[in-house]
Amino acid sequence: MPQHASKIVDPCEQEDRIQAFKTCRDYSLTLCDSLSPEDHMIQGAPFASPPKWHLAHTNWFFATFVLEPLALEPSTPSSWKTLFNSYYNGLGQPHARAARGILSRPALSDIIQWRMQVDDQIVKSLNADQFNPEQLQLIDLGLQHEMQHQELLVTDLLYSFSLNPSHPIFNATPAPLHPAAAKVEWLKFDGGLIEVGAGDEGFSFDNEHPRHRHFLEPFVIANRLVTNGEYQKFIDAGGYLDAQWWLSEGWDTVNREQWRRPLHWLDQNRIFSLQGVQPLDLNAPVCHLSGYEAEAYARWSGCRLPTEFEWEYAASRQTPEIRPAGLSDAMNQSGWFGSVWQWTQSAYGPYPGYQPDKGAVGEYNGKFMSSQWVLRGSSFATPELQQRLHYRNFFYPADRWQFTGLRLGKTATSP
Amino acid sequence: MPQHASKIVDPCEQEDRIQAFKTCRDYSLTLCDSLSPEDHMIQGAPFASPPKWHLAHTNWFFATFVLEPLALEPSTPSSWKTLFNSYYNGLGQPHARAARGILSRPALSDIIQWRMQVDDQIVKSLNADQFNPEQLQLIDLGLQHEMQHQELLVTDLLYSFSLNPSHPIFNATPAPLHPAAAKVEWLKFDGGLIEVGAGDEGFSFDNEHPRHRHFLEPFVIANRLVTNGEYQKFIDAGGYLDAQWWLSEGWDTVNREQWRRPLHWLDQNRIFSLQGVQPLDLNAPVCHLSGYEAEAYARWSGCRLPTEFEWEYAASRQTPEIRPAGLSDAMNQSGWFGSVWQWTQSAYGPYPGYQPDKGAVGEYNGKFMSSQWVLRGSSFATPELQQRLHYRNFFYPADRWQFTGLRLGKTATSP
Amino acid sequence: MPQHASKIVDPCEQEDRIQAFKTCRDYSLTLCDSLSPEDHMIQGAPFASPPKWHLAHTNWFFATFVLEPLALEPSTPSSWKTLFNSYYNGLGQPHARAARGILSRPALSDIIQWRMQVDDQIVKSLNADQFNPEQLQLIDLGLQHEMQHQELLVTDLLYSFSLNPSHPIFNATPAPLHPAAAKVEWLKFDGGLIEVGAGDEGFSFDNEHPRHRHFLEPFVIANRLVTNGEYQKFIDAGGYLDAQWWLSEGWDTVNREQWRRPLHWLDQNRIFSLQGVQPLDLNAPVCHLSGYEAEAYARWSGCRLPTEFEWEYAASRQTPEIRPAGLSDAMNQSGWFGSVWQWTQSAYGPYPGYQPDKGAVGEYNGKFMSSQWVLRGSSFATPELQQRLHYRNFFYPADRWQFTGLRLGKTATSP
Amino acid sequence: MPQHASKIVDPCEQEDRIQAFKTCRDYSLTLCDSLSPEDHMIQGAPFASPPKWHLAHTNWFFATFVLEPLALEPSTPSSWKTLFNSYYNGLGQPHARAARGILSRPALSDIIQWRMQVDDQIVKSLNADQFNPEQLQLIDLGLQHEMQHQELLVTDLLYSFSLNPSHPIFNATPAPLHPAAAKVEWLKFDGGLIEVGAGDEGFSFDNEHPRHRHFLEPFVIANRLVTNGEYQKFIDAGGYLDAQWWLSEGWDTVNREQWRRPLHWLDQNRIFSLQGVQPLDLNAPVCHLSGYEAEAYARWSGCRLPTEFEWEYAASRQTPEIRPAGLSDAMNQSGWFGSVWQWTQSAYGPYPGYQPDKGAVGEYNGKFMSSQWVLRGSSFATPELQQRLHYRNFFYPADRWQFTGLRLGKTATSP
Repeated sequence: MPQHASKIVDPCEQEDRIQAFKTCRDYSLTLCDSLSPEDHMIQGAPFASPPKWHLAHTNWFFATFVLEPLALEPSTPSSWKTLFNSYYNGLGQPHARAARGILSRPALSDIIQWRMQVDDQIVKSLNADQFNPEQLQLIDLGLQHEMQHQELLVTDLLYSFSLNPSHPIFNATPAPLHPAAAKVEWLKFDGGLIEVGAGDEGFSFDNEHPRHRHFLEPFVIANRLVTNGEYQKFIDAGGYLDAQWWLSEGWDTVNREQWRRPLHWLDQNRIFSLQGVQPLDLNAPVCHLSGYEAEAYARWSGCRLPTEFEWEYAASRQTPEIRPAGLSDAMNQSGWFGSVWQWTQSAYGPYPGYQPDKGAVGEYNGKFMSSQWVLRGSSFATPELQQRLHYRNFFYPADRWQFTGLRLGKTATSP
Repeated sequence: MPQHASKIVDPCEQEDRIQAFKTCRDYSLTLCDSLSPEDHMIQGAPFASPPKWHLAHTNWFFATFVLEPLALEPSTPSSWKTLFNSYYNGLGQPHARAARGILSRPALSDIIQWRMQVDDQIVKSLNADQFNPEQLQLIDLGLQHEMQHQELLVTDLLYSFSLNPSHPIFNATPAPLHPAAAKVEWLKFDGGLIEVGAGDEGFSFDNEHPRHRHFLEPFVIANRLVTNGEYQKFIDAGGYLDAQWWLSEGWDTVNREQWRRPLHWLDQNRIFSLQGVQPLDLNAPVCHLSGYEAEAYARWSGCRLPTEFEWEYAASRQTPEIRPAGLSDAMNQSGWFGSVWQWTQSAYGPYPGYQPDKGAVGEYNGKFMSSQWVLRGSSFATPELQQRLHYRNFFYPADRWQFTGLRLGKTATSP
Repeated sequence: MPQHASKIVDPCEQEDRIQAFKTCRDYSLTLCDSLSPEDHMIQGAPFASPPKWHLAHTNWFFATFVLEPLALEPSTPSSWKTLFNSYYNGLGQPHARAARGILSRPALSDIIQWRMQVDDQIVKSLNADQFNPEQLQLIDLGLQHEMQHQELLVTDLLYSFSLNPSHPIFNATPAPLHPAAAKVEWLKFDGGLIEVGAGDEGFSFDNEHPRHRHFLEPFVIANRLVTNGEYQKFIDAGGYLDAQWWLSEGWDTVNREQWRRPLHWLDQNRIFSLQGVQPLDLNAPVCHLSGYEAEAYARWSGCRLPTEFEWEYAASRQTPEIRPAGLSDAMNQSGWFGSVWQWTQSAYGPYPGYQPDKGAVGEYNGKFMSSQWVLRGSSFATPELQQRLHYRNFFYPADRWQFTGLRLGKTATSP
Repeated sequence: MPQHASKIVDPCEQEDRIQAFKTCRDYSLTLCDSLSPEDHMIQGAPFASPPKWHLAHTNWFFATFVLEPLALEPSTPSSWKTLFNSYYNGLGQPHARAARGILSRPALSDIIQWRMQVDDQIVKSLNADQFNPEQLQLIDLGLQHEMQHQELLVTDLLYSFSLNPSHPIFNATPAPLHPAAAKVEWLKFDGGLIEVGAGDEGFSFDNEHPRHRHFLEPFVIANRLVTNGEYQKFIDAGGYLDAQWWLSEGWDTVNREQWRRPLHWLDQNRIFSLQGVQPLDLNAPVCHLSGYEAEAYARWSGCRLPTEFEWEYAASRQTPEIRPAGLSDAMNQSGWFGSVWQWTQSAYGPYPGYQPDKGAVGEYNGKFMSSQWVLRGSSFATPELQQRLHYRNFFYPADRWQFTGLRLGKTATSP
């Protein structure tokens, strides 16, 4: 149980929680509106789970961590407990990740029915005030978990669709073009001893805790994201062919995978997107970069990636309110939130004094604290309620199927 | 174009061909009656194509080799030409085999509609007598091709279902138990100079030609297949743990894959089958053996696998009519046909004077003539029209997801 | 014990055998005259054993199969029994093949001393007539085994040297240029029922037995080997870039390994050889071909690879004496022996009635009878005593580090 | 050129530098006194370079970075420039790391002669005062580089020897037993804003710079290393079989590699060491742990790994002089230096304001700043001059062939 969340959480009122629960749960299904049962099946790579599995796994989370301990209905078929467990070893050996795509059974309709049973039960019990504070926090955790999977569902599907030469379209509404990007302004910060990490207000994951002091040297950070047009200059300059810009592992990856441009760029002028094949928008933030590419680009441009604490500190000074405006912000190239996730140079590790949540749910974050890098901000696909200042997203530096880009930083030179 | 088939083929009458065409094409859909669109999607391994892909690929065959050269409708969308090409490099680089499972688009309903368009066109043209003999032979080849995929569809699906811990059932009708197996009788043959391979009568693949002379030493061959009960004795005797019974590659495979029993045996007493989880029927022919296992069992029992010519010669003397009784024969443990495919010790290679068919269709058989072994007979899942004396099935000796077993042979000792 | 060799073997006289023994054993060391102890260590790939290991393994063979059963000195240190066992599972789990290159201990000098102890013991016992016929045959087998490793030692070393950019030279004597190759003449044979395989005269391996009848269709075969110049035309014609010439597995290999020319061709004009970097001799037989390349070249040129029996039959009609002139023959482009091994289209399998030798030595040949192809003839590096009409060499069709080329064959067209 | 080292370095006097140079260079050869030329060849894994390669590479460093820019003799053969380049892409594509074991040529004697030529030239030029400050710093860097390889030479050799079932002995002098380990005392620190990283005094690598401020929360750290006896309790408690103690990647590694105890433990009671097979000394510091094992042990024992800054701060308070007593300290279980390297929880990354050295030598450290963990202290095999407070060693958390153990830490609980 997340101690840091032991205070009243937001939405703190039961009615708010019920509304938030319904909204979030419905949104998972709404997201899939344009998909056939067949679309719900596809898994283009071990890392890209099928939509159906996301719908089932998020439901499994509530069934397992909320309902089962209280012996509430519906009971989960025993094979489903295995099938829809992602990586919680404390709950038994999960079904092989790479084989999530063969789950034609249970059918999508069974999963949807199961979700409704769980929804009904949780709403009923919430109305009856049957949960204690710890259980309420698990429900909140389950909602945040579901929001994470809403974004994953979209990135995974985009990846799986990208392997289909008929270029399926997820979203028929055309994406508007971005306006011309203004010249970068460098925001300057003196640094000093600051506080970072989440406090007690509102929801947060265990890995955002404890809030603690951190000393920052003076630094500068760009007021906007790197654009496709800027990144294209790196490509044109032979950036993918020159070892000097790359971390050693990055260089190995570039050569092994024959990377020559970001993921989903079909060529220098066309990308594959949720809207299908589209012309490359030079003013849009560059997206689908691995950490290695982000880092190499930064070095090539005479800069570096910011640390996660530089980012957090700068963002806190730039965004009048912690929770940004959300998806409308996706067009805002300055945007700290709602556009693309931003790679930092920080390895994903524990904050001083970090304690994982107790029980199997403690496997949520802590056991992944090696070899990954922190990303900050959020993407246009991140649910609005999940766009938070302290949020620490993490992926391997070779991963690039998420909506990931970068914002440049620099160590401040002496005045 | 198969020269060997340049004579009138069977069914030789146009009406018979139309009937055969309809029957065969309908049967592919009938086979899938119990499957949902989701079931049609699953690919449990690179070698196990989804049912939908089988339905589409067999249709692609007619569209590509029969209709397209004549510019007949329906025209095939260009991405489909790639997606549903299996391995015909002469027609362009096919879609990656391992990624057939991500083809949610085109939808199953689109594929079925496409099949109907092709069916209508071919039947119409057959009725109008629009095809020349070469085209008629390609239609016959397409039907035989489709029959091969009907069997593959079932074995592939069984494999993919086997990875689902909820143990889906393909066929709800229970399989009857086999009667007790009689003691093996050894059929004796003097050998000598024989003729093997297909003649001009009826359909045959290019790899069954030319019919040619072959010298056989005296040999004996078992009058029935090896049973589960017999094979279990090999397991119980530690056969999987003792290098002396195995070919070197087989021993490597056994250890690398940790094989301890045939595929789809859940344990010593239960198997996963088209009927779901079933008790092991000790009197049924052992099935789902790799060639290595068949060969090791034969050595352990003091015998060997027959050669494909020993098999063909013996079968020709045992089966009064070349086309056996068919599926009803599945219960017949003596059965040369309609029970399980029988591994031979013959490497799959060209007959003396072998000529592949001309054009891209020539990639059908010839380019696979390395590293594989010949299997003879047929299985209970082989369509009746494909149960032929000269038929040469071929798989890698490590493959075991087909319905494959064995019949023992021996070199005759001097009288 | 090889029954087929149960008759008096050649050299049949004890004195001849002693002389042959000394000659063969000494030759292994002579071969290594130009090598340092460091050179004796190198293993460029799992398949390319270090010279020291070859020297030790061939000695292990005599120590294990001849001396140990008679409890004769020297006794083998127990770790050496593991280290120098190649693949005889019946004698325990061998040291990992890929790790033969880390055996700095025992030192080369220890191995040489061990060889001398074994030599002394065997010669002493031969002189004292202490061996029974079965043991004498094992000695003969050990000598043939050692001759095989003499050739392997050279091909393995060439491969390992090839990875060293300083291009070490094994043999400082320049190789003479080949005279211009005459136009190919096609030798015609009517075929019919022939006898193939080794008889009782002289030494032979178990896999050459039993001698048996085989029916041959009419065929033609080239009177000489394919040359570098001829093969270069295949390269220039884009042979490595066109799927139509290749077996399916060959095409996969070509693309995966990015093959564009034979092994050890540094470019179109230079090769790496035992004499170091040399200009390509257009008239020399093409060498270091995989079976796939040999097969593709044959198809491209409108021919095919001969079967092993066509080869044996033709060679027996062309070479007045079975044992050819030997190394001097290396210059002879017509040469069936002593130039390069010749790929056949025959999969390596058992002859009808094949029986492996009894005991652990029975693992010598039989257990490799899957997935490999037979090569016939011999190379310039094959010891003269091993150049025999019936000899069946075998390698995987992807292997090309041996001295392997080809001779073309064709099915005879009707007169 | 390391700016941070632009001040006078230690040993600052030319005579001291000459003496240090000779001592260091001679020691590399002395280390190999017990090895044959064959021993100098072995490479048991891609990561374990042969002794000869270490001797050549360290010489290449001086030849390339010091002599070549000044056109001083000896000139390096061009193939050697490739062969003995480790990973400096700025100097061309290096010889494949995994193929260092096939370098029989150049011979060891050639390498030793080359080293002497380089030594003579550098000493002569030092005596003649021919080097500018930058070049002198490169010489110092070359010596530190050589010391790193002296330790690697030993760990690599131990690994390669470990694969030889005859258990070669590197050092015939028996290792003394450790006295009984005293109960752990927890050293308490209040933390606060501290300074970490190397200053301008003495040698340091670029990755130890710049010295900078860091905020530490209160913490405790053990006054001694974890012993074999303590670690054995973790094994006995089933630590290797229980996912709850492991990072996700660690658990995957444990299962894939089937780890059940530290590297070089032959069983629960015997280890393979530089002295050959030895009984396990329960009081000795546990060694040959991966970071995953160190981290899992720490979690199991209710503690955690210290961060690199906690370690540095605590060590600076415990060791009266920065440079410890050296190898004699190896027996000191409390020892921060000279026993085993100590895993920290810190990911290896750049310090704020980090600048790699200029030119190809800048590839030394900076490009490895992903996926690795920092180790602090030093091992008994670390040359004395390299035992420094600020030294940041780094390896992948899966690596365990170095002399690596751990010291426990904890977050301080409130008083």
